[in-house]
Amino acid sequence: MSKDLDEILEKLEKGEISLSRLEKIIGNANLAALARRIFLERKLGISLSSIASTILDFEVLYGRNIENPIGAVQIPVGVVGPLRVNGEYARGDFYVPLATTEGALVASISRGVKAITLSGGATTRIIADGMTRAPLIRTESVSEAVKLVAWIREHWDMLREEAGKATRHGALVDFYPYIVGNLVWIRMKYSTGDAMGMNMATIASDRVCRRILEEYPGRIECVALSGNMCSDKKPAIVNRLLGRGKYVVAEALVKREVVEERLKTTPEAIHYVNISKNLMGSAAAGSPSYNAHVANIIAAIFLATGQDAAQIVESSLAFTWTEPRSEGLYISVTLPSLEVGTVGGGTRLPTQREALSIMGVAGGGDPVGSNALKFAEIVAATVLAGELNLLAALAAGHLASAHELLGRGKIRGGQS
Amino acid sequence: MSKDLDEILEKLEKGEISLSRLEKIIGNANLAALARRIFLERKLGISLSSIASTILDFEVLYGRNIENPIGAVQIPVGVVGPLRVNGEYARGDFYVPLATTEGALVASISRGVKAITLSGGATTRIIADGMTRAPLIRTESVSEAVKLVAWIREHWDMLREEAGKATRHGALVDFYPYIVGNLVWIRMKYSTGDAMGMNMATIASDRVCRRILEEYPGRIECVALSGNMCSDKKPAIVNRLLGRGKYVVAEALVKREVVEERLKTTPEAIHYVNISKNLMGSAAAGSPSYNAHVANIIAAIFLATGQDAAQIVESSLAFTWTEPRSEGLYISVTLPSLEVGTVGGGTRLPTQREALSIMGVAGGGDPVGSNALKFAEIVAATVLAGELNLLAALAAGHLASAHELLGRGKIRGGQS
Amino acid sequence: MSKDLDEILEKLEKGEISLSRLEKIIGNANLAALARRIFLERKLGISLSSIASTILDFEVLYGRNIENPIGAVQIPVGVVGPLRVNGEYARGDFYVPLATTEGALVASISRGVKAITLSGGATTRIIADGMTRAPLIRTESVSEAVKLVAWIREHWDMLREEAGKATRHGALVDFYPYIVGNLVWIRMKYSTGDAMGMNMATIASDRVCRRILEEYPGRIECVALSGNMCSDKKPAIVNRLLGRGKYVVAEALVKREVVEERLKTTPEAIHYVNISKNLMGSAAAGSPSYNAHVANIIAAIFLATGQDAAQIVESSLAFTWTEPRSEGLYISVTLPSLEVGTVGGGTRLPTQREALSIMGVAGGGDPVGSNALKFAEIVAATVLAGELNLLAALAAGHLASAHELLGRGKIRGGQS
Amino acid sequence: MSKDLDEILEKLEKGEISLSRLEKIIGNANLAALARRIFLERKLGISLSSIASTILDFEVLYGRNIENPIGAVQIPVGVVGPLRVNGEYARGDFYVPLATTEGALVASISRGVKAITLSGGATTRIIADGMTRAPLIRTESVSEAVKLVAWIREHWDMLREEAGKATRHGALVDFYPYIVGNLVWIRMKYSTGDAMGMNMATIASDRVCRRILEEYPGRIECVALSGNMCSDKKPAIVNRLLGRGKYVVAEALVKREVVEERLKTTPEAIHYVNISKNLMGSAAAGSPSYNAHVANIIAAIFLATGQDAAQIVESSLAFTWTEPRSEGLYISVTLPSLEVGTVGGGTRLPTQREALSIMGVAGGGDPVGSNALKFAEIVAATVLAGELNLLAALAAGHLASAHELLGRGKIRGGQS
Repeated sequence: MSKDLDEILEKLEKGEISLSRLEKIIGNANLAALARRIFLERKLGISLSSIASTILDFEVLYGRNIENPIGAVQIPVGVVGPLRVNGEYARGDFYVPLATTEGALVASISRGVKAITLSGGATTRIIADGMTRAPLIRTESVSEAVKLVAWIREHWDMLREEAGKATRHGALVDFYPYIVGNLVWIRMKYSTGDAMGMNMATIASDRVCRRILEEYPGRIECVALSGNMCSDKKPAIVNRLLGRGKYVVAEALVKREVVEERLKTTPEAIHYVNISKNLMGSAAAGSPSYNAHVANIIAAIFLATGQDAAQIVESSLAFTWTEPRSEGLYISVTLPSLEVGTVGGGTRLPTQREALSIMGVAGGGDPVGSNALKFAEIVAATVLAGELNLLAALAAGHLASAHELLGRGKIRGGQS
Repeated sequence: MSKDLDEILEKLEKGEISLSRLEKIIGNANLAALARRIFLERKLGISLSSIASTILDFEVLYGRNIENPIGAVQIPVGVVGPLRVNGEYARGDFYVPLATTEGALVASISRGVKAITLSGGATTRIIADGMTRAPLIRTESVSEAVKLVAWIREHWDMLREEAGKATRHGALVDFYPYIVGNLVWIRMKYSTGDAMGMNMATIASDRVCRRILEEYPGRIECVALSGNMCSDKKPAIVNRLLGRGKYVVAEALVKREVVEERLKTTPEAIHYVNISKNLMGSAAAGSPSYNAHVANIIAAIFLATGQDAAQIVESSLAFTWTEPRSEGLYISVTLPSLEVGTVGGGTRLPTQREALSIMGVAGGGDPVGSNALKFAEIVAATVLAGELNLLAALAAGHLASAHELLGRGKIRGGQS
Repeated sequence: MSKDLDEILEKLEKGEISLSRLEKIIGNANLAALARRIFLERKLGISLSSIASTILDFEVLYGRNIENPIGAVQIPVGVVGPLRVNGEYARGDFYVPLATTEGALVASISRGVKAITLSGGATTRIIADGMTRAPLIRTESVSEAVKLVAWIREHWDMLREEAGKATRHGALVDFYPYIVGNLVWIRMKYSTGDAMGMNMATIASDRVCRRILEEYPGRIECVALSGNMCSDKKPAIVNRLLGRGKYVVAEALVKREVVEERLKTTPEAIHYVNISKNLMGSAAAGSPSYNAHVANIIAAIFLATGQDAAQIVESSLAFTWTEPRSEGLYISVTLPSLEVGTVGGGTRLPTQREALSIMGVAGGGDPVGSNALKFAEIVAATVLAGELNLLAALAAGHLASAHELLGRGKIRGGQS
Repeated sequence: MSKDLDEILEKLEKGEISLSRLEKIIGNANLAALARRIFLERKLGISLSSIASTILDFEVLYGRNIENPIGAVQIPVGVVGPLRVNGEYARGDFYVPLATTEGALVASISRGVKAITLSGGATTRIIADGMTRAPLIRTESVSEAVKLVAWIREHWDMLREEAGKATRHGALVDFYPYIVGNLVWIRMKYSTGDAMGMNMATIASDRVCRRILEEYPGRIECVALSGNMCSDKKPAIVNRLLGRGKYVVAEALVKREVVEERLKTTPEAIHYVNISKNLMGSAAAGSPSYNAHVANIIAAIFLATGQDAAQIVESSLAFTWTEPRSEGLYISVTLPSLEVGTVGGGTRLPTQREALSIMGVAGGGDPVGSNALKFAEIVAATVLAGELNLLAALAAGHLASAHELLGRGKIRGGQS
C-alpha cells in the first residue's frame, strides 16, 4: 500500500480527491483513517500518535457512528458509589461512571452520593416517557391548517400504523398539533424501547409525513421534517412542559446529622442558597433551568455512556427544589427531558458499553424499555447528589464567617 | 502488590474503605485505577478491559482532571476540511476535528464546509470577549443594596487589583450589578487569555468577595460565589444579551450555483426553512436558541478538543440568519456565549491537545489570547457549515415533490 | 347629612375610621363616594370635580366592581370600520370601539382596517377555548405526588361534577397535571360560556380542591388556589403552548395593489420588517411575544369593552407571520391566550356594554358562548389590521431613501 | 346642521365618505363625534347615550389623544390609603387612586396598605431611569456591522447632540448595540424628565437614525425605527435586565403581630407561598414574571392616571421576594421596567390629571423629573401592598384546615 498511499496523499494535497472519499478509494476504513492522519501530520507538521492509539475499529463504526475518521479522543472516567436508589426500575446500590476533564467534579459528586446513601438513598419516579419529532407543514391558510389537524385526528390509526412500519420496539403513541397562522407543527410522541429513539422517531415521522402528503386532499407541503417544536438539541420550554425522553424526578430526605456532620452546614442554609441562587438567580438571568450545575453531571454520564452529547443541552433542563424539615433537608431534582438510551448510537462502542455495564444497564432491557428507564433513574439520582453537594458547599461558606468562607481558596464541588 | 490488592479489595467490598481513598492508600494513581477496575469487575461480574485500554497517565491527571479514575472512554474523531476562514485571528484553510458517535454528522458538516469554501470561505468577527462570574450577596434591605453597589463602584480599582492577584494572564475588566430587593448579584467580567477562564474567574471573584466582606462597612453576606447570573452551564438570556466567553459571528455568501448544484436547492427555499423552523419554530417552542443543530457541531468540537462538555449548553445558544440575495444565500450564525480555551482544563490531555494542533491552536497564543480567539472563529465557521447543510437538506426535501422528498428515506445531515 | 358628614370627615382626618368603612357608616355608596371625595379634596387641597362627573351608580357597582369608590375616570373612545370578518362566529362588516389616549393609534388601525376590507376581509378561526386555573398542592414526596395525580384521574368524574356545582354555563373539561419534586399543579380547564370565566374557574377550582382535600387518603395541603401555572396576568409560555381563553387566528391576503397604493410599500418589504423586527428582534430581546404592537390594539378594545385590563398582559402574547405571495401579502396574527367575555365583570357597566353593542356582542350569545367567540374573532381581526399598518409604515420608510424615510418626522402608526 | 348631518349620514351609509373624514368635513370634533354616534346608532339599532355622556372636549383631544371619537368609556375609581412611603422622592402618607372593574381588588390592596403602614411603611428606591428605543439597521455583512457600531461610538457626541434637538427636557444618555449577523440594533436610552417619554425617544431616535444614514460612509438601511429590542409593549428580558422607564424597588418589614393579627397568617406561611407559587410556579409556567398579581395593581393605577395601557405588559414584569425574619416578614417587589409619567399622553385628560393630583404628582416636577420618580415610588409601594395581601390571603388558607380554607367560598384579594 505504501506506493498507493503516496499517490493518495499527493492527490489529497493537490485537492484532486477529498478527505471524504478515502474509504471508497482505499477500501478499508482503518487504513483510510491512517491515510488521513498521515496527510494531516505531514501537511500540518504535527503528530497525531495519541489520537491514533485507539481500540476502535472503523470498519465497524464507519457510517454508523463516524465519517472521515482519524482515530479517537480519550476522556478520563471516574466512578462514584455506592449510590442507593429506591426507584421503580433501579433498586439497590449502584456505581456510576463519569467522564470528565474538570478536576474536583467526581470528588464533589462522590461527597453528595455518600450523604444520600447514608440517609437511606434517593427515591426516583418516572413521570412520563416518550421521544418526540415535530415536522412543520405549510398550508395555504389557517382554515386549511385547522382542516389538516382535523384530518390527522380522523386518520390517526392509519398514521400510527404507518409509523409502526419503521420500528420494531417503538410506537407512535400521541401527537400535539400547534398552529401559527398557516403553519402547522405535528409534535409526534413515540415510545422507543431502550433506545434514546431520535433516529427511530425521525424515520417514522418521515413515513407519517409522506403518508399525509400522499393522502391528504388539500395543498400542503412539508417544510421541514424537524420544525424545532420537537425540540431537539435546543433548550425549549415545550420539552420542559410536555416532556421529552424520560421525565424523571429524584428526591432524598437528607438526615439533619448528615447535613451537619458530613456537609458542614444546615438544611436551612442550603435551602436559602437554593431559593436565592437556583430560583431567583436563574429567574434574574432569564434562564429556563433552575439548578446549580445539573449539566455537569449529565455531561459526565452522557460522555461515559455514549449518549448524544448535543442532547446535554435539553437533558440538563432541571428544577432543584428544597424544603428544610425537622428531620433534615428534603431535596429533589426534576428532569423533564432526559434523553437517554442503552442501545443504539454511541452505546454500542466498547468503552461506552462497559460504562453502561457498571450500572447493569448495557443493551436492551427485559421487558423492553426497562433498561433505559432504570438508567434514567440512576442518572437522576446522581444529578441529585451533584446538586446536594454543590449547594451544601456554597452554604457552608455562607454560614462561615467571611474570612473562613473565602479562605478556603477554592469552592468545593463543580463549577456552576 | 497482589497480596495488598486482595486486602484492599476485601475492605472495599466490606465498605471499610471508600473508592475515593485508593490513591492515598496505594500511593499511585494508575494502580489505584487498576484496583478500582478489578473491584468493579469482580463485584459486578463485568469486564472493563476497553476502559482500561488508555494512554492516559493518572499520575498526571489525578485531581487536576479526574478523581476515582478507572480508565478512559474513547470517542471516534473525524475531520472536515479544508474550511476557508476569513477572520481576524483565523485566516486561511483549516481542518477541523469532530468527536461524535452520531452517524452522518461529520459527513453532513463536511458537505457544508465544501459549499462555504467553494464560495470563498466564511468571514468571522469577534464581537466581545470575557468570562463572567456573579457572586450573590445578601444585604438587609434595598437601601443597603444600593449602597453596596455604590461602594463597589467607588472601590473598583482596589477590587480590580485584588482580582489581579489571582491571575497572571487575565484581568477583571468590568462588572454588571443586578438588584432584586435586598439581593445583589455582582456579574464580574474577566479577560482570560487563552484559557476558557472559568476557574480563574471563580478564584479571582472569591478574592474580590473576600475583600468586599472585609472592607465594606455594612452588614452583608456572600450567599453563593456563583449566584446563577454568571450564568454557567445553564442556558440564560443574560449570556446571550451581555455575552460570555467569546461573542462571535460567522457568515458566508454562498454562491447561487453552489446552492443549486451542490446543495440541490435554492437560497429562497433555504431561507423559508430558516424563518419558519429556526425562527418561528423555536419561538413557538419557547426556546432561546434560534438555530437548527448548532449544539451538534459545538459538542463535536468540544469533545475533540477538551473543552468543558457541560458548557455545550450555553455555548450552543445561537441565532441563524439568512437572506436570499441575487448572488446567492447570505447566511450567518451568531454565538454570543461561546466558551472555549486552548490552555487549561481538558486541553492538556494528549488526544485533545493533538486535536487542537490540527487547527494550529494548541497551547497559548502569541499575543496571549490570540489562540483562543482564533479557535473561536474556527468553531463559528464550522457551526456555519453545519447549519448551512442541514437547512439545505431540509429545503431540498421541501422543494421536491412529496414522494421524492420523503422517498430518500433519510434526512441528510445531523439530527435536530 | 351635612352635620353627619362633617363628623365623618373629622373622624377620617383623625384616622378614627378608615376610608373603607364609609359605605357601612353612611349606608349609601354614592354618598360614601361623595364623602371620600370631599375628604380628599379638603385634605389635599385639590379638586375632584371631573372624577365626580360620572354616570356610574355605585349602589350597583359597590363590591361587584369597585370598593372605596370616588367616581370614575373617562377614557376617549374612537371607532374604526367597517372591518370585514370572515369567521366562524363573526361574519360581515363590523365597527370596532377603541379606548385609548395615544394619539394616532386609532387612525393607524383604521388604515389597516381599510386595507384588509379592500382585500376581501380577514379570515378568523378559533383553535381552542377554555379558561384555566391551576391550584398548587404540596405532598410529602414525589411518590405521593404521582399517587395524587393518579387518584385525580381515577376520580375525575366526581371532581368534574363537583366543579359543575359552581357554575351554570361553564364546565370543567380537562386538566393538565405538572409535577416538580413533591409539588403538584393541577391546571384545570373550563368552558365558560360567554364569560371570560376567571371568577367561575376560581370558584369551581376551590370546590375541586376542597373535595380532593376531603377525600384523598394521603397527606396533602393546598398551598395556593392559584399556583401561577394558570397563568393569570403574567406572560407565560404555558398559555402560549396550551392556550388560555380563546386561542384565535386572524389572517388576510392583502392584495398587491392595496399594499402598493394604499400602504405605499411592497409585500416583500413588509415581510423583511416582520422577520427581522418581529421575529429576530423579539428573539434577541428575550421576548415571548413576536409582534409589533398587538398590546396596543388589545388594550384599546379591552378598555372600551370592560375586559380585565390586567389580562392585556397575556392576551397580547402573539405571533405575527407574513409571506409575500404573487397575489400580495399573506399576513396572520395568532393569539393563543385571548381572555375575553361579553358578560360579567366590567362588561356590565353602561359605557362598556354600549361598546360591546357596537359589535353586536353585548350580553350572552345564542347558543351560549357564541358571543364571546364572535367577539374574539373581531378582536383578532382588528389586531391584524393594527399589525399590518405598523409593519407597512415601517416598511415604507425602509424602502424610501434615507432622507425621505426620516423626513416625515413621525412614524405612521402606533408606538411599538 | 341637521340637514348637513342627514347628508353626511347618507354618504357614510353609502360608503362615499369614511368615518375618519368627519372632522374635516364638519369642522368641529365634538360634532363629528356626535355624527359618528348617530350613524352607528341608526345603522346598528343601538343606543350610545352612556358613551356620549362625557366631559371630554374632542376639540382638545382630537389627534393628540384620539381619532374617530364617539365619546368616552367610564371606569370606576376607588382609593386606598394612607400608604406610608419612605422613598427618595415620595416621603409621607399617600392616597392612591385605582381604576378597575374587578370586584374585591381595591379592598384587597387596601388591606395590604394598612398592614404596611402599620409596620412603618414601605421603603422605595429608584435603581435606574431611562426610556429606550432601538432602531434596527441592516448592513451588508458582520464586518460592516462591527464598523457601524465603532463609527457610532466615535460619533457619539454628534449623535447625542442631534437627539437633543428633539427634546427640551430629555437627553440621549447611553446606547447598547446588539449584533446578529449583518443586523444591528442600537438600543438608545434617554432621560425624559417627567414624561414617560416614548414619543420623545422615538422622535429623537428618528433624528439620530437620519443623521447616521446621512453621514455614515457605508451602505446601510434603517429597517425599522423600532426593532423590538426597545422593547415596547412586549414582555422582554432585555427590559428586565437592562431596565426601561423606572427600575424601582419597594420593600417592607411587616411586623410579626401585623401578619398574625391583621393578615391571619405567619411570615413563614407567606414565604412558602411565595417561593412555591411566585418563584417555582412561574418557573414551571415559563413566565418571566415572578409575582402573584402585580399586573392588577399596575393596571388599576395606569388606567386611573392616564398611563399607556399597553405598557401594563412590561411594566408589570416583577420579582416578589420574601424572607421570614424574627421581627416579621421581609417582602420586596422589584419592577425593572415601570414606564410612567406625570406629563404628556393621557395624563393631560381631566379625570386622569385629578387622579395624579391625589398623589401630589400632577404635571411636571421641580426639579424636572422628580414627579415621575415620586410617582414611580408610590406605584411600587402600592404594588407591594397588593402582593402582600394576596400572598397572605393564600397563606391563610394554606394554614387553615381544608374545610376552613375553602369554606370561605372566595379567595381574598385580586385574581391571579
